[in-house]
Amino acid sequence: MAQTISIIGLDSIGLIQSGDDLSRIIYDATRTEKSELQNNDIIVISQKIISKAEGQLVDISTIKPSARSKDFAKTTNKSPQLITLILQDSARILRAERRALIVRRKDGFICLNAGVDKSNVKGKTVYARLPNNSDISAQKLRANLERLSGKKLAIIVADTYSRPSRVGQVEFAIGVAGIQPIIDYRGEKDLFGYELKFKYVALADELAAAAELVMGQGTEQIPVAIIRGLGRLQHTEETNLSKKLSLGRQKDLFSEIL
Amino acid sequence: MAQTISIIGLDSIGLIQSGDDLSRIIYDATRTEKSELQNNDIIVISQKIISKAEGQLVDISTIKPSARSKDFAKTTNKSPQLITLILQDSARILRAERRALIVRRKDGFICLNAGVDKSNVKGKTVYARLPNNSDISAQKLRANLERLSGKKLAIIVADTYSRPSRVGQVEFAIGVAGIQPIIDYRGEKDLFGYELKFKYVALADELAAAAELVMGQGTEQIPVAIIRGLGRLQHTEETNLSKKLSLGRQKDLFSEIL
Repeated sequence: MAQTISIIGLDSIGLIQSGDDLSRIIYDATRTEKSELQNNDIIVISQKIISKAEGQLVDISTIKPSARSKDFAKTTNKSPQLITLILQDSARILRAERRALIVRRKDGFICLNAGVDKSNVKGKTVYARLPNNSDISAQKLRANLERLSGKKLAIIVADTYSRPSRVGQVEFAIGVAGIQPIIDYRGEKDLFGYELKFKYVALADELAAAAELVMGQGTEQIPVAIIRGLGRLQHTEETNLSKKLSLGRQKDLFSEIL
Repeated sequence: MAQTISIIGLDSIGLIQSGDDLSRIIYDATRTEKSELQNNDIIVISQKIISKAEGQLVDISTIKPSARSKDFAKTTNKSPQLITLILQDSARILRAERRALIVRRKDGFICLNAGVDKSNVKGKTVYARLPNNSDISAQKLRANLERLSGKKLAIIVADTYSRPSRVGQVEFAIGVAGIQPIIDYRGEKDLFGYELKFKYVALADELAAAAELVMGQGTEQIPVAIIRGLGRLQHTEETNLSKKLSLGRQKDLFSEIL
């Protein structure tokens, strides 16, 4: 018989401020909205509200532009202050031009503007950085929400990404706690006893993409979604889980050809 | 109050043979499984069962290897027959080495082995090609399923893709009918009246990824999922919809840097 997975979007979270107790706010929302947490729920949270709660908003008008920022500012047509902020989180600039500033962040993720982002942030010159370490943010939220609810949970921190060779953005997982982000099918057989073509399913990225269906891009004010009913969860207490999704250049089948 | 999207996996589809009436089989499964179709349902279908129904299985032992195939066969350690089949669907070889054969298909999609695939196909030397035109397959399935059910539907054909710079595979949309595959947020404002950072959400890819959560990789025998409750659908009668998701090299922000 049909198997059903539910994606439940919480819309009573409200606007988040620096210092807010996000676990408590999410827990209260599940109760207010009659969507009490259950064992094995996966809670997908937009990085933006975690950045806000963790105080990662920066008014770039207070930044003294670095010497290095000025060239990039000219090339990309962005302000030297904004570039200075982006460089703080970047290990390496991969592309700098008017269309895009693409970097490898210090935490290894490749993304536009090091994830520094203006949308849904109040104040004309105020920008949000990504959470300092989204895996640790996910771990803390998981611990708190498990304590409050008494249920076994997993957390995914989701951020919006552009992708090589595809039009449009989707959500990726940039922080993970409680479950393996990748399902390893190595050694498993297909319906007819042959080896499966694909060995690793990026489950955490699929969960993030699925959550966007209900969360939208911010104006909907649904920054949290609960995904319920997934059969293939592999629980884990490992840390640094999101790093498993980030591929080194040497291993990238697509490097240099796109 | 909480908003819910459901992903309903159908597990009574069974094995599909060349010539099978897939619309009828899917329709019957929705009734058998007490999951009758509703208006605005999106039906995500694995490309593999469409390939099978459309007779896109090839026994490569019957193929006479082309001259061109022999060099690629040596480099990639695949059989010249398999390479010959892959070349039939390829416009250009982007990378050929032991780790991977990456091509731009004649329909524009960049993928491994031109989508030619062994998994869940019966017979040691039998491989599945992608449907000849997955948008047209989607249109036909939509027309038939709308006629059978009397409901307004959308269809996504999903295939498993590896991605640059990320570990693991996810499902992408390679065929679309009935809805815009991309939501265009241009001109919309964020919570505080500023422009949104991201302008295009790849909704069809998110739907494909979400469906994989219930469908799995074949052994689960859930090749079809119904996604219900999505608010942001934009209905359309346009054709060639999946092409909107495929980015030309010139427009690719990431070209050459990964």
